[in-house]
Amino acid sequence: MGGDEGARTMIAGAAIARERYPAARFRLFGDQAQIATELVRSPALERVAEIIHTAQAVLGTDKPSHAVRHGRASSMGLAIAAVKEGQASVAVSGGNTGALMAMSKVMLRTQAGIDRPALAALIPNARSESVMLDLGANVDCTAENLVEFAVMGAAFARIALGLKLPRVALLNIGEEELKGTEELREAATVLRAADLPMRFDGFIEGDKLVRGDVDVIVTDGFTGNIALKTAEGTARLVTQLVGRAFRSSWMSQLGYLLSANAFRSLKSHVDANNHNGAVFLGLNGLVVKSHGGANAKGVANAIGVAHDLAVDGIGGRIARDLESVRARRAAQLAAAPAPATHAA
Amino acid sequence: MGGDEGARTMIAGAAIARERYPAARFRLFGDQAQIATELVRSPALERVAEIIHTAQAVLGTDKPSHAVRHGRASSMGLAIAAVKEGQASVAVSGGNTGALMAMSKVMLRTQAGIDRPALAALIPNARSESVMLDLGANVDCTAENLVEFAVMGAAFARIALGLKLPRVALLNIGEEELKGTEELREAATVLRAADLPMRFDGFIEGDKLVRGDVDVIVTDGFTGNIALKTAEGTARLVTQLVGRAFRSSWMSQLGYLLSANAFRSLKSHVDANNHNGAVFLGLNGLVVKSHGGANAKGVANAIGVAHDLAVDGIGGRIARDLESVRARRAAQLAAAPAPATHAA
Repeated sequence: MGGDEGARTMIAGAAIARERYPAARFRLFGDQAQIATELVRSPALERVAEIIHTAQAVLGTDKPSHAVRHGRASSMGLAIAAVKEGQASVAVSGGNTGALMAMSKVMLRTQAGIDRPALAALIPNARSESVMLDLGANVDCTAENLVEFAVMGAAFARIALGLKLPRVALLNIGEEELKGTEELREAATVLRAADLPMRFDGFIEGDKLVRGDVDVIVTDGFTGNIALKTAEGTARLVTQLVGRAFRSSWMSQLGYLLSANAFRSLKSHVDANNHNGAVFLGLNGLVVKSHGGANAKGVANAIGVAHDLAVDGIGGRIARDLESVRARRAAQLAAAPAPATHAA
Repeated sequence: MGGDEGARTMIAGAAIARERYPAARFRLFGDQAQIATELVRSPALERVAEIIHTAQAVLGTDKPSHAVRHGRASSMGLAIAAVKEGQASVAVSGGNTGALMAMSKVMLRTQAGIDRPALAALIPNARSESVMLDLGANVDCTAENLVEFAVMGAAFARIALGLKLPRVALLNIGEEELKGTEELREAATVLRAADLPMRFDGFIEGDKLVRGDVDVIVTDGFTGNIALKTAEGTARLVTQLVGRAFRSSWMSQLGYLLSANAFRSLKSHVDANNHNGAVFLGLNGLVVKSHGGANAKGVANAIGVAHDLAVDGIGGRIARDLESVRARRAAQLAAAPAPATHAA
């Protein structure tokens, strides 16, 4: 029932995903009549889909706390419950992000060994895509949280981007070791010593975020949310200015007609639908958020991300990697000379 | 001696500024021979300029702490000293930002009533320009710091953008009153109650940063640095993709030729040279930073910002406005019912 256009777009997206992943099966949570009306358009999807009816839906304006208290029987609540009870491998929603995060956290609980789950997404860069997290689940983060995010983000990049050794960096206000907050410097120390299927590249500055130099950008949820939205807003502004330039005279309009084909590929590269599917990592169960404004192709891409993560079993990978980081950190601290003590 | 091209560009910029501000006089700090060689190209500037020779210069790679300890006799150190001693109304430098901030802070000291000075700059938006601060002077900020930044940023906007009632907003991860950190919520409460020559617009999200809805964007130095650099990096990426699109076929190349004129105005709008001149606000003296990569026109624009701030006497404005905010806050707290106490 989520997304700006509700069942129609979600089901059209599922129909595309059903063609891409012939082994996938679908549970569609929401208003039986609405879903059934849409489903008749996609007989192939209908054959592998089950409708679970509920008249309740979380609204875009609902507060997360309200959704947690009153939304268990909503389409969102039932979808998360299906993941919890093993009736679904992953839940995909186009609904209220805050409510989805809060309900997922309360219902699925945080994975053992993880202090804080994080919201991760794919963002376009000059070459292809990178993973960025946290995008708003945690306003304040400790060094340990940032290390967890790095491990989770690297696991996500290995699966979603098909990389063996993703390059991971911490977002900071300078690249020198002494820059930024204490949390960032401490997290960098731990990650430098870690022995994981990833390459730790140290710090990265905001202007290099979209250059594609690294595959995973790690930051706290406050900074990540602002950086991602700033990038979106700036891309939109420059695109608008380009459009304005093209419309400014008959000659440039003619120029646009001649260049239109070339600009379609640019538009496609920055189109959020082609990078859809934010993942809530670090829970006992998988939940993927599709952009509210995504079209059917965008929804299908989010389902694709969900599919790959579920098939791969990302939770197990994260648990193993974190164990390895912690063992190494403990060994490192044990090997270091004990600090002088002033205790009597 | 600062800026990527040293004396040549700085003096070419001063020559342009000298035409714009016939009453301005210039003190040029640095290598006498180099400066004199450049100065002969601009007789009009030469007539109102004095060279203060020093063979020392702060390097781009110098650490701020090193510059503070050893840079007093450098061109940067002498320029700041001239402001301190009243021999100059404002210092303009194209050199090492960290060193300039550290030396300015130590030599000029923080203005009475200000806890932390902040780095403010003009950024382009969809309509014209807005002021953004702090851009990296303070990694951690209290609510009180954010209030000071808002007052200083509004004073800067009134002068640099010629606005009577600049719209001011705090950068946050949502627009609702309860979003973000405690510091942000507390700062918003104080600013909502303030009675100043500005309009407080509450919170603004990253995607609206460049829309031009507000004139002053207030944030801590960590977030501000990352948001500004992310915007710069994204604008560069989209511009590169546009260039790539134009070069992708002979037809789109022809399209470019026809649209080139229109794109010049777009380029000019996002060109950093047209928004040059970051200001270190909150000190007993004015210091303006010109982009290291600025061209002569960019340097002239930074000098223009410096000129306007000096003529207006921004320090006095800030002091008066802060006094008014604090008086109102004190009255507000005094009027509020005393909280219940559990003391025996």
